[in-house]
Amino acid sequence: MEREPATAALLIIGNEILSGRTHDKNIPYIAERLTGVGVNLREIRVVPDIEAEIVSAVQALSARYAYLFTTGGIGPTHDDITAECVAKAVDRPLIRNPEAMRLLTAHYDRLGVPFNEMRQRMAMTPEGAALIPNPISAAPGFIIDNVHVMAGVPKIMQAMLDAVLPDLVGGPPMRAKTIMCNTGEGTVAAALAEIQARFETVDIGSYPGQTATGFHTQLVLRSADPDALDAASDAVFEEVAALGGAPHYL
Amino acid sequence: MEREPATAALLIIGNEILSGRTHDKNIPYIAERLTGVGVNLREIRVVPDIEAEIVSAVQALSARYAYLFTTGGIGPTHDDITAECVAKAVDRPLIRNPEAMRLLTAHYDRLGVPFNEMRQRMAMTPEGAALIPNPISAAPGFIIDNVHVMAGVPKIMQAMLDAVLPDLVGGPPMRAKTIMCNTGEGTVAAALAEIQARFETVDIGSYPGQTATGFHTQLVLRSADPDALDAASDAVFEEVAALGGAPHYL
Repeated sequence: MEREPATAALLIIGNEILSGRTHDKNIPYIAERLTGVGVNLREIRVVPDIEAEIVSAVQALSARYAYLFTTGGIGPTHDDITAECVAKAVDRPLIRNPEAMRLLTAHYDRLGVPFNEMRQRMAMTPEGAALIPNPISAAPGFIIDNVHVMAGVPKIMQAMLDAVLPDLVGGPPMRAKTIMCNTGEGTVAAALAEIQARFETVDIGSYPGQTATGFHTQLVLRSADPDALDAASDAVFEEVAALGGAPHYL
Repeated sequence: MEREPATAALLIIGNEILSGRTHDKNIPYIAERLTGVGVNLREIRVVPDIEAEIVSAVQALSARYAYLFTTGGIGPTHDDITAECVAKAVDRPLIRNPEAMRLLTAHYDRLGVPFNEMRQRMAMTPEGAALIPNPISAAPGFIIDNVHVMAGVPKIMQAMLDAVLPDLVGGPPMRAKTIMCNTGEGTVAAALAEIQARFETVDIGSYPGQTATGFHTQLVLRSADPDALDAASDAVFEEVAALGGAPHYL
């Protein structure tokens, strides 16, 4: 199967998200940053710390999308199994990465903390992986084929993603316009459907809300084609005004 | 394939999560409530408002887990396509549900708002579906086979989930204990791995953190077996104490 260019998937690895213990804070950051470089986040999966689940998700998502990003499971404890699972998924041996060993040895020397056997697990990568630097706690992420393995801790994940963003090949950047109107969705829905049918390259989303003063709807138009975006937005604005929705751009 | 008893998957439908525009607030609520009734949330997927993606995810997840919950895409606008996709996935005709029509007709009568053709889209369900009440904005969710279709708006989703929880068949409830220790993960990792190997029915998770005063690690033990949970927790507590981690239960 041909990978779709300028697309990405995110695989979140961790029992703690599925149990509700930890509230994911990484999805919005990753979604916004990828959008910013013209990469379209097309799918997200969350799976538990179970080898077969991780391997199968890595294989399915890396085969289909141009980029796969993973978060979580790269620490020193027994439940950190991402590196070995990714190695299996891409069919490479898991090795003690020499560059990662150097980085971590220096880091723990500085801290005066023993670089013990469990901590050395953080230096394991599939053979041939390129490291992603971790400016916060040293333990690196890595890239193998199109799979980008990152930490789950938000600050570290953000630094890792920012480090790899310049190397991604995006499509034309998506632009967005948001029109707020003061009616319920149902009042403008027929007009929106008609405009959506006319503008294939524009994605029109409708998000209802309610405040003390009544219903409102946010209409979000997204496109990589600025002219189509302007034309569709003008059409939506006019139709909403004609329907009494008092539109304004946000 | 036999469905795994007392398991569930969550399918989040919506471009707005993948673009980063909307931050999901539903995962933690759903995860915690399901855990509370002994249902193990095993997988989450987020897919865009694209028919083929939704149909294929519904089929894959409903075949594998005892329950599938979906959120999003049940409003009146063109991008709300969940009902028709679920109907395709379970191979039933999409019908104008008579009970949903009655509820929505009464609702819009009360509001003095026209129950127009687009709003009537919210009364469409697969044939044979049971409705899930919506005490906030009337438009119901529905259950067909093991698929539970809910709204994406958090308040409405929560009311819908709470309405169906009593009918779910859970396993024995998971219990959890959390031990806080004041060392980094790497210091206690070998001991944890050894204890994890001894207690197969207990899931031991390790979550690092850092504050101004140094590193700390939260150790979370989860099990449906209270005796095993107590024994494993005691073992972790003792080992962490012996390693100078000054453990305390949270």
